[in-house]
Amino acid sequence: MNPRLQSLLQHWPAWQWLARYNRAWLASDTVAAVLVTVLLIPQSLAYALLAGLPAETGLYASVLPLVAYALLGSSRTLSVGPVAVASLMTAAAIADATALGLAATEVAVLLALLSGGLLLLCGLLRVGWVANFLSHPVVAGFVSASGLLIALSQVKHLLGIAAEGDTVIELVSSLAAHSGSIHAATAALGSGTLLFLIWSRQGLPALLRRSGVSAATAALLSRAAPMLAVVVTTCLAFGVDLQARGVALVGHIPAGLPTLQWPALPWPAVQSLLLPAALLALIGYVESVAVGKTLGARRGEKIDPDQELIGLGAANIAAAVSGGLPVTGGFSRSVVNFDAGAVTPMASLLTAAGIAVAALLLTPLLAFLPNATLAATICVAVLSLVDLSILQRTWEYSRSDFAAVCTTMLTTLLAGVEFGVSCGVLASLLLHLYRTSRPHVAEVGEVAGSGHFRNVKRHAVVTHPAILSLRIDESLYFANASYIEDSILAAVRQRSQLRHVVLLCSAVNAIDLSALEVLEGLNARLQTLGIGLHLSEVKGPVMDRLQHSDLLSHLNGRIFLSQQQAVRTLEAECLAGAQQQPGFADYQI
Amino acid sequence: MNPRLQSLLQHWPAWQWLARYNRAWLASDTVAAVLVTVLLIPQSLAYALLAGLPAETGLYASVLPLVAYALLGSSRTLSVGPVAVASLMTAAAIADATALGLAATEVAVLLALLSGGLLLLCGLLRVGWVANFLSHPVVAGFVSASGLLIALSQVKHLLGIAAEGDTVIELVSSLAAHSGSIHAATAALGSGTLLFLIWSRQGLPALLRRSGVSAATAALLSRAAPMLAVVVTTCLAFGVDLQARGVALVGHIPAGLPTLQWPALPWPAVQSLLLPAALLALIGYVESVAVGKTLGARRGEKIDPDQELIGLGAANIAAAVSGGLPVTGGFSRSVVNFDAGAVTPMASLLTAAGIAVAALLLTPLLAFLPNATLAATICVAVLSLVDLSILQRTWEYSRSDFAAVCTTMLTTLLAGVEFGVSCGVLASLLLHLYRTSRPHVAEVGEVAGSGHFRNVKRHAVVTHPAILSLRIDESLYFANASYIEDSILAAVRQRSQLRHVVLLCSAVNAIDLSALEVLEGLNARLQTLGIGLHLSEVKGPVMDRLQHSDLLSHLNGRIFLSQQQAVRTLEAECLAGAQQQPGFADYQI
Repeated sequence: MNPRLQSLLQHWPAWQWLARYNRAWLASDTVAAVLVTVLLIPQSLAYALLAGLPAETGLYASVLPLVAYALLGSSRTLSVGPVAVASLMTAAAIADATALGLAATEVAVLLALLSGGLLLLCGLLRVGWVANFLSHPVVAGFVSASGLLIALSQVKHLLGIAAEGDTVIELVSSLAAHSGSIHAATAALGSGTLLFLIWSRQGLPALLRRSGVSAATAALLSRAAPMLAVVVTTCLAFGVDLQARGVALVGHIPAGLPTLQWPALPWPAVQSLLLPAALLALIGYVESVAVGKTLGARRGEKIDPDQELIGLGAANIAAAVSGGLPVTGGFSRSVVNFDAGAVTPMASLLTAAGIAVAALLLTPLLAFLPNATLAATICVAVLSLVDLSILQRTWEYSRSDFAAVCTTMLTTLLAGVEFGVSCGVLASLLLHLYRTSRPHVAEVGEVAGSGHFRNVKRHAVVTHPAILSLRIDESLYFANASYIEDSILAAVRQRSQLRHVVLLCSAVNAIDLSALEVLEGLNARLQTLGIGLHLSEVKGPVMDRLQHSDLLSHLNGRIFLSQQQAVRTLEAECLAGAQQQPGFADYQI
Repeated sequence: MNPRLQSLLQHWPAWQWLARYNRAWLASDTVAAVLVTVLLIPQSLAYALLAGLPAETGLYASVLPLVAYALLGSSRTLSVGPVAVASLMTAAAIADATALGLAATEVAVLLALLSGGLLLLCGLLRVGWVANFLSHPVVAGFVSASGLLIALSQVKHLLGIAAEGDTVIELVSSLAAHSGSIHAATAALGSGTLLFLIWSRQGLPALLRRSGVSAATAALLSRAAPMLAVVVTTCLAFGVDLQARGVALVGHIPAGLPTLQWPALPWPAVQSLLLPAALLALIGYVESVAVGKTLGARRGEKIDPDQELIGLGAANIAAAVSGGLPVTGGFSRSVVNFDAGAVTPMASLLTAAGIAVAALLLTPLLAFLPNATLAATICVAVLSLVDLSILQRTWEYSRSDFAAVCTTMLTTLLAGVEFGVSCGVLASLLLHLYRTSRPHVAEVGEVAGSGHFRNVKRHAVVTHPAILSLRIDESLYFANASYIEDSILAAVRQRSQLRHVVLLCSAVNAIDLSALEVLEGLNARLQTLGIGLHLSEVKGPVMDRLQHSDLLSHLNGRIFLSQQQAVRTLEAECLAGAQQQPGFADYQI
């Protein structure tokens, strides 16, 4: 093979499995593809409905995006497509963008294009690390709150009433206002389907196991329950003409595959959708990588965060050009794909083919599908997202994580998804900054004879009245420089016989210029009091930095390699009553 | 005295000096007050002109605000009033707010009220620490860039031409466009005054010293040079009728003191001025506290940051109700006050009385004051603010501080003061977060026989092939958790004989829930590889937190008090081929 072509292919993630593809893999991938297709047909219709879009956009978002991700993504088993949280965010963006006079489908396509473009750009710039600024508890809180919002938004379809709203308060008050007009037939169908789907989660696998089916197969087969509900209620709607009885059906879905076209980009719409698109990209990416990493770890496969950006970006752009809605990696669907034995992304290519066949052949039947069935599917799917244990876990482990989760959940429920996720990111960053701006400063002493120095309040340690050893538990930077200065001076004021202050810098990973100025001021202040200022255990990178400053030549004391060396030397000098010249020669040993 | 009254008085900062006030202090304070009044009259007129306000607002801002600060502030020698940077920010806010149909004086008063209210609120909530998020280099860069902008904005007054603009590009192009219409008499007067004022900084004190005046007195007397320029050019304008020759004069200033009134607060104006007011409050507060701390340190007086918020807040509210412009502590003026021997804030009360007398009696004379004189005063005052050495210092010491300073200076010069200071704050925070999100992870070994562990790349150390000791140089939190995981796994992959990984946690000041989850994942991953994960030198507060988690019970290894203990124990076990049960009993010793 041409060596240049070969080197290009080496960088193409799909080449790693395409080049070695074999019949055994194909068999496994086909089984997985069939199961995922069966799960994805009702899900894709339901999430289109949730986003306030025509049902076919869900199918369209489940063909080309799967192909794009299969060829460019780095996870072997992630299954992309419409997902609940992204669809809720799309619904919120559509509601906001109506003022611009755009149709819902135009907004969805633009949103997919913009978030795809942003993901692709970040992937090419290799800045996947920015996603790290979203903390896990915040994501967990956001997903749980979104799940509640989504379930609440589906109650109207389950009961056959009209209700609107983007927040818990709007939804509840709107549902309450319309509660008099519940449609009996719809409510019966909706609650029946809901109960069946809830039972299918635990009851159905148990029943199958009792019938002699293996546990793993029973678990997989029960995943087809939503499809079974779709088939049964569609037949019912067709057989007894539920539409005539006032039950809302999905209605006419144009048959066939979408026509491909590059969406128009009107500037005012781009401006107003850029923030929602960025948030959607961020949440979609973080969720997707989390799912990909979880599955990858089980088989020792590695996820490349930058390649994921490219794969998801391409998938969203593919969704945009084929008239779909924004997509990302879905948790339940990927687990089915994995558990059903998918070996390579070929499973996703086959799933895409399956959905394409459905779009070509099944749409006349899907027209009779009741909306209440889809709403029940959504409710059961999202209730598994709601995990309030994150509140308990953060409360027990860390109050600041708990505060960030509460902020995220409350703002999401009360002010909508976009505001909620923005508040979550801001809350985590501000809490982190607040914590580092008021660091722990501990007086330390030697754990007798060990050469190891620990907090005097927690350990039985030896100290010397003329020497104050302080451990600064944070890097010194502008936000905490004056706080640390105040803490040190307060500790100095409490001692009358003090001759030396030694700052144990094992936890100081950086000293910025603001902090350096504060250290110089502190040095001058202590000098006037006749007290020496010494540093110990200064790390290499920090020492490199200090050597570019004047502090070392002004320092009214020395730099010691270790705290033990500092204390032994200074104790000996105090005893001898001797005063050596300051310097930092000790560091060079 | 009533004990409750006494306890109240104890909390009133002014009571500390009022109760002990004596005749010697009065003599010193009076001398300082006279000198500061002489300096403040031209400055207050000039800064009103700079802000685009009638000259009398400068005088009004130099009476009541001084009284308010003297009674409520915590610095004994800080001199508040209109200052250059705050006036420039006021000018920018006025330019932005013209769209709202408000007069310039209304905007200034609202701005003073809003920033005063914000400062007071922060003082009562004791959240003065938020000001720490503005780093010193950013403030220095911002003040230097503002000084350049201010000097440039005064060129039109010095040359007698019309020019407008808020940024360097606007100002320069506007000046260039009008350069044909320089007014000869104004330019002569302006440049003459400018040269005299520049000479007065070094030439005048030297001349006075040669005439037998002491160095300190000469330095103080030369501070009256701006007043001398005002007197001489005013007399000139009156004597030879400069107005008839086309030289712009200050013009009619209403005599007397301002009428006090609470400003109206129209909601749209409040909304659009809230951000400028917050930035003004932030910058004013940071500058003021810096000046107060510098002077306080010279006499061992302590500045209380929260009391400063209250003092400056009250001063700005006083400025608002008396028709003035926003005020803050001025550097040059406070230095004069200090050097002239001010002992207590009585000096400021006397200065306020002096300015009140000037407002009552001198306004007919000030009408003949040429604008060019004031412009020259401003130019000389602000050029001392421009200190480009901050660029050199940050370049040498830290590239990330340098990047923050450059961002601040460039955005201030090219996009105006409000955008500049916002970008400065954002740049410092983002650079800090970026740094902590990619921390230094060093492999360490024992400095032979010392029990002290340092980086293998920097020191001659002893290591063991089966034990990998890694020092994590940062707290573990959501933004760096996966980066650290990747670094550790990369280090593990390079070793074939590895049996134990010991994480030296001396620099880990906190572990949040996201990082805890990553540690649990890492623990499980290493367990499958048959490698133990141990922690050493975990700090008290971190250990407290971990004891609320499951990590310690799952940990495939132990917690050691010190790195030395960890390595000695594990080495011994490796040699003996023994395998102990994991636990963390070692920590309790």
